[in-house]
Amino acid sequence: MKHKKISSAVIHRLPKYYRHLGELIDTGIQRISSRDLSIRMRVTASQIRHDLNQFGGFGQQGYGYNVKSLYKEIENILGLGNKHNIVVIGAGNLGRALAHYQDFKARGFHIVGIFDNNPDLVGDDVSGLKVMSVSDLPAFIKDNDVEIGTIAIPKSEAKKMAQVLVDNGVNQIWNFAHTDLHMGDGVVVENVNLTESLMRLSFMAALELEKKQ
Amino acid sequence: MKHKKISSAVIHRLPKYYRHLGELIDTGIQRISSRDLSIRMRVTASQIRHDLNQFGGFGQQGYGYNVKSLYKEIENILGLGNKHNIVVIGAGNLGRALAHYQDFKARGFHIVGIFDNNPDLVGDDVSGLKVMSVSDLPAFIKDNDVEIGTIAIPKSEAKKMAQVLVDNGVNQIWNFAHTDLHMGDGVVVENVNLTESLMRLSFMAALELEKKQ
Repeated sequence: MKHKKISSAVIHRLPKYYRHLGELIDTGIQRISSRDLSIRMRVTASQIRHDLNQFGGFGQQGYGYNVKSLYKEIENILGLGNKHNIVVIGAGNLGRALAHYQDFKARGFHIVGIFDNNPDLVGDDVSGLKVMSVSDLPAFIKDNDVEIGTIAIPKSEAKKMAQVLVDNGVNQIWNFAHTDLHMGDGVVVENVNLTESLMRLSFMAALELEKKQ
Repeated sequence: MKHKKISSAVIHRLPKYYRHLGELIDTGIQRISSRDLSIRMRVTASQIRHDLNQFGGFGQQGYGYNVKSLYKEIENILGLGNKHNIVVIGAGNLGRALAHYQDFKARGFHIVGIFDNNPDLVGDDVSGLKVMSVSDLPAFIKDNDVEIGTIAIPKSEAKKMAQVLVDNGVNQIWNFAHTDLHMGDGVVVENVNLTESLMRLSFMAALELEKKQ
């Protein structure tokens, strides 16, 4: 199936469909109308139909969606059927927290290595992984079918380490540094900027206050 | 200044303007055209003019933006001028990583307390803070002018603890649990779902692969 020009809003919503459908499966619900799904997800029913039509449409008029088959379709679209190996660059607090996070593995995302350039941290045990030196990164990527590289280091080093990942064939970068990374054609980057996330919260609160005044 | 119907896309971009303008100040640049800012931020110049016009417009035709005054204006709009006190619920790896994160404080976001319901963790030192019992949360919020509550616990407990925060007057929730929280009128929630972030990365990579085929 060819998907052309999928908007970033749809890219943003698709994992939410997947999560909500998974929760419906857990509660034994086999079929759901776009209207009921819309109430649950707090988007409009027409939005849901529009989103899912971009992938061929899965519902039948007046009959709703088969929860399990829609879940499986979205799983497939999201590329979640396979195992994805991840390395984490940075064995500081954030890198360690990510390595400990159990939820990723349940979705097929396996953190297989954690690296740092601080020799004092090399050899530390993090969730069953020994912290390795960044000098070992190229060989490790080659031997371990690494798809995703996580940047959990300060922004001063972020671009350089992302380039090392890309140069060694990793074309998915999950970036937590306080800078947007743009790595060129064929490399996808997901920027998670926690400081900006806090600013958004603060901004939404300021807008909320104005509403009251 | 009244801002009506600010879109979530603008809410998303505003912290990015702020970051880029801060970087321009650091490099000594005093004035920038919307065109140059657009190249730097990888959005269109008309997008920038449109975004900033929603707040009254700060540029002069043919003259560009005064970097420092625009930075200050956006700081004000984002509510970053004041100190914001934050508590973290959950002293697991993620809660600890957030408490250690230095970058927040530079923007006025101060983590002043960390709480857990596991008695084995109470009393632990995390970045200079002693982990407290969640039973101490209401009194702590009252005494410490807490504005933001961070949910860094599994989703089974997330809603309950968010409600405790709201019941005690905290109306900004920063949620890291793998579930969307909706806390009702007057409460703003920023959901940071790391698993969904990984899924988006995986999805973008799948789309990229298709382009090549």
